[in-house]
Amino acid sequence: MTSLRQHLLFASFNEQQFSQIETATSVLSLNDGNHLFHQQDPAKYFYYLQAGEIKLYRLSANGEEKVIELIRPGQTFAEAVMFMNFQHYPVHAQAISDCQLIQIKMGTFLKLLDQSPATCLKILAKMSQRLHGSIQEIDQLTLQNATMRVVQFMLQGITNDALSPYKIQWTAPKATLASRLSVRPETFSRILKKLTRDGLIEVQGKTITILNLEALRQHINI
Amino acid sequence: MTSLRQHLLFASFNEQQFSQIETATSVLSLNDGNHLFHQQDPAKYFYYLQAGEIKLYRLSANGEEKVIELIRPGQTFAEAVMFMNFQHYPVHAQAISDCQLIQIKMGTFLKLLDQSPATCLKILAKMSQRLHGSIQEIDQLTLQNATMRVVQFMLQGITNDALSPYKIQWTAPKATLASRLSVRPETFSRILKKLTRDGLIEVQGKTITILNLEALRQHINI
Repeated sequence: MTSLRQHLLFASFNEQQFSQIETATSVLSLNDGNHLFHQQDPAKYFYYLQAGEIKLYRLSANGEEKVIELIRPGQTFAEAVMFMNFQHYPVHAQAISDCQLIQIKMGTFLKLLDQSPATCLKILAKMSQRLHGSIQEIDQLTLQNATMRVVQFMLQGITNDALSPYKIQWTAPKATLASRLSVRPETFSRILKKLTRDGLIEVQGKTITILNLEALRQHINI
Repeated sequence: MTSLRQHLLFASFNEQQFSQIETATSVLSLNDGNHLFHQQDPAKYFYYLQAGEIKLYRLSANGEEKVIELIRPGQTFAEAVMFMNFQHYPVHAQAISDCQLIQIKMGTFLKLLDQSPATCLKILAKMSQRLHGSIQEIDQLTLQNATMRVVQFMLQGITNDALSPYKIQWTAPKATLASRLSVRPETFSRILKKLTRDGLIEVQGKTITILNLEALRQHINI
């Protein structure tokens, strides 16, 4: 139960509240391929995944499967349903490897929140912080991705035996290059500045000098 | 105010509640380089960024700046502080371009939540959903990033005039390659499967056949 205790939905409860929660939980095992619940089933429980992987999916009108989310250990799922009025699962949940789960009664959890608006606020605080963290992570990953594309584009057509420094002449305006690489113009500038600061390139108008080819190749290869 | 109305913190209020909020907001402009608040200032307001970019940062003991987050239009910030007991800003906030902001009184917002636990639950629901969305986005970006690294590694040393199909012989075990590329072994397998499904490669033990070099190069160049 230690890991559950630390999850953002549970960390704000005091010991007494948490022991009430514990009486409303049970541990489940689910074999690879088995379903935990189906779309439109009435929702009485939400889940914390301890081990394995769960696929949440919907079926379209023509029976096509659309994966909504892959749940990894340490994540809860279906907890958003509990905070809504229409309490039916909006997705199918299927184990895609052998799984161990903690099943938590929504009713007990909600009753605790109802008795303690302060806990509600604490959970809101934790969620806000986590959301900010995620946004930041997405920003960094997007930047990494964009950096890879930009560097890749710079290195394009440069043979392995080319020598540094190596000059590239870009013909298109930066905005066009950015768009071709699916990178926002500000991000494009941010990347060029960062690479310059890292001593990998020098930028003069549309001339890029790669100061160290090997280091630039390494840079996106880590 | 339209965009504020749609933000997850505000979307769950009814019209009457939202008009109460509106009386507690004001619009601010901030010039590039100016500070909005400093670390440890008492926190009475949280903010919604309409235009521009805000940098949230801390100063370490030796005066070094650590950027915590870059706020982009459409994001709120400092709202997590409102849900906590110690209501001081934990960071400095500085405009890094000309900014337009909506400033919201924390007191008014909290009073509304206090009067309506149901609204609190609705916000929790929206935040949970958003968090799941972010986790999914991070997962996809991580996969994209990892795919780029793997494909890049495959293409390494293959000259531009090489012909498809092109066979690569890997010598190290997959787990070692994955580790060298900073990719989790499951992710590594997931990527090879996906590239195979997309008809780009064929995998037989440690022999990778690139079926179409040009398509594989394009694949990571979009």
